[in-house]
Amino acid sequence: MADFDVTILGCGSALPTTRHLASSQVVDLRDKLYMIDCGEGTQVQMRHQHIKFSRLNHIFISHLHGDHCFGLPGLVSTLGMLGRLGELVIHGPAAVETFMRPLLDLFCKGLPFEVRFNPIDPTQHQLVMEDRSLKVYSLPLKHRIPCCGYLFAEKPKAPHILREMTDFYQVPIAMMQHIKEGADYVTPEGEVIPNSRLTRPAVPPKRYAYCSDTAYQPSLIPYIEGVDLLYHEATFAECDAARAKETFHSTARQAAQLAKEAQVKRLVIGHYSARYEELDQLKQEADSLFPGTLLGYEGMRLTL
Amino acid sequence: MADFDVTILGCGSALPTTRHLASSQVVDLRDKLYMIDCGEGTQVQMRHQHIKFSRLNHIFISHLHGDHCFGLPGLVSTLGMLGRLGELVIHGPAAVETFMRPLLDLFCKGLPFEVRFNPIDPTQHQLVMEDRSLKVYSLPLKHRIPCCGYLFAEKPKAPHILREMTDFYQVPIAMMQHIKEGADYVTPEGEVIPNSRLTRPAVPPKRYAYCSDTAYQPSLIPYIEGVDLLYHEATFAECDAARAKETFHSTARQAAQLAKEAQVKRLVIGHYSARYEELDQLKQEADSLFPGTLLGYEGMRLTL
Repeated sequence: MADFDVTILGCGSALPTTRHLASSQVVDLRDKLYMIDCGEGTQVQMRHQHIKFSRLNHIFISHLHGDHCFGLPGLVSTLGMLGRLGELVIHGPAAVETFMRPLLDLFCKGLPFEVRFNPIDPTQHQLVMEDRSLKVYSLPLKHRIPCCGYLFAEKPKAPHILREMTDFYQVPIAMMQHIKEGADYVTPEGEVIPNSRLTRPAVPPKRYAYCSDTAYQPSLIPYIEGVDLLYHEATFAECDAARAKETFHSTARQAAQLAKEAQVKRLVIGHYSARYEELDQLKQEADSLFPGTLLGYEGMRLTL
Repeated sequence: MADFDVTILGCGSALPTTRHLASSQVVDLRDKLYMIDCGEGTQVQMRHQHIKFSRLNHIFISHLHGDHCFGLPGLVSTLGMLGRLGELVIHGPAAVETFMRPLLDLFCKGLPFEVRFNPIDPTQHQLVMEDRSLKVYSLPLKHRIPCCGYLFAEKPKAPHILREMTDFYQVPIAMMQHIKEGADYVTPEGEVIPNSRLTRPAVPPKRYAYCSDTAYQPSLIPYIEGVDLLYHEATFAECDAARAKETFHSTARQAAQLAKEAQVKRLVIGHYSARYEELDQLKQEADSLFPGTLLGYEGMRLTL
């Protein structure tokens, strides 16, 4: 199993189709799951994609449009029926609690676990959550209502100990943690063994950015520059650029433009308008600026 | 197209599985659609089953458990995006409005149509809705929270005019409506032509009863006696009868028992617990009392 991957559960937009589902994704970092958005049908998709309910502790909601959050009441109810005990944290604009609190009161009396809401300011780029292996930041987006994306930044991992070298220098077990943290080793004879001879640097930490829903927003560039993977909404093709502007969405070309300017390593697009039966047009238009753009689909798993 | 049919959109119970969806059905009577329950994912299922959103004017909710109503906010939002103008009536226990009103305020500002809530008393057998071709009655069920089923009773249709007979007697056009309503015809010579010679009786009106969720409830019998089709929940097999009792659900055998006692013409069961991978056991147990019991499934269309 990969260390850090993203599974797309749904990458359609507001109107239901038989081709796509409402927005939701799951980030899996070292077997801990973090959900981004939770459109209607997410819990069923979790079953189809074999996502373990018990590993999910944090949900990040981008904004209060139904196709990004109408799956929350069902998912929270189900977690209760499955006997969950640990706290569930739902991060998002303050309105997420306004939406969910009355539903919890009405449908989830006696829920065996705590639901904590972490209200975030979608106009700011701020640290939203931090745990042992991850920092999550908000990304201010430009939509019809307050809306933010999320940047998942893996924390640097400790370097690998070169066991044959620590054996050779007879480094005591008690010193190992210090070595991992970068210390040199001083032998009983006073010889200094530089850390670089005892360790091999870890793989550089990876970053994933989720930007949906949003108009083309170049002010995002400093925050997402060089990320390993960017998911950017591409609701429309260029022929519908006027509609994109009017509704504060992006065209596939605009998604690619941002990816190019931010020099991201890979781009995956989604949040397709129901009007497109085929996505070739979107792919071509994105490819023209950012070759190798990936078309998101339900069940797609991307390893960082 | 049949005159009167029922399409099962979902016949699972509360926990999500890959085999079944949350409860919802659509009754189609002469091309008007009436929905019963609206679990999460209903709007996507409507697309899969080619159900026309524009033909739906009434939704009947049995009770306030999520697997019977968490699809409502998404469906109402979608109807708005599709530009619906006509009133939508949502019938159900008063709590349905408590649930939906804040969501409409939060998510559906500027909805181009009216949503009217018709609060019904789930403890009573009463007329809930009536239109040209149909009467819908509530059926008091026995569940953990207030809950009612629905009886769809087609109105008697006018008899068919026997054209060759009305031609023979030269019945004037102006009289035809009276003949349809049962009048005899008196010729200019004073001869009385009895109605029975001028018409052929219409097909007898049909009745459909939906009973979910409920424990075995024999007090329903007088209301559903002889119905053409009964949908009755069968959440559990006999081996889990204790669990059925505890949660106010029925076993398949109890569903069949009620169908037998009420002498219904056909029985279809559903609302299966997620614990059963296969439904053979439920089918066998129901068949032992009511041979030919039908196992409901997603996409099943039953013609009355």
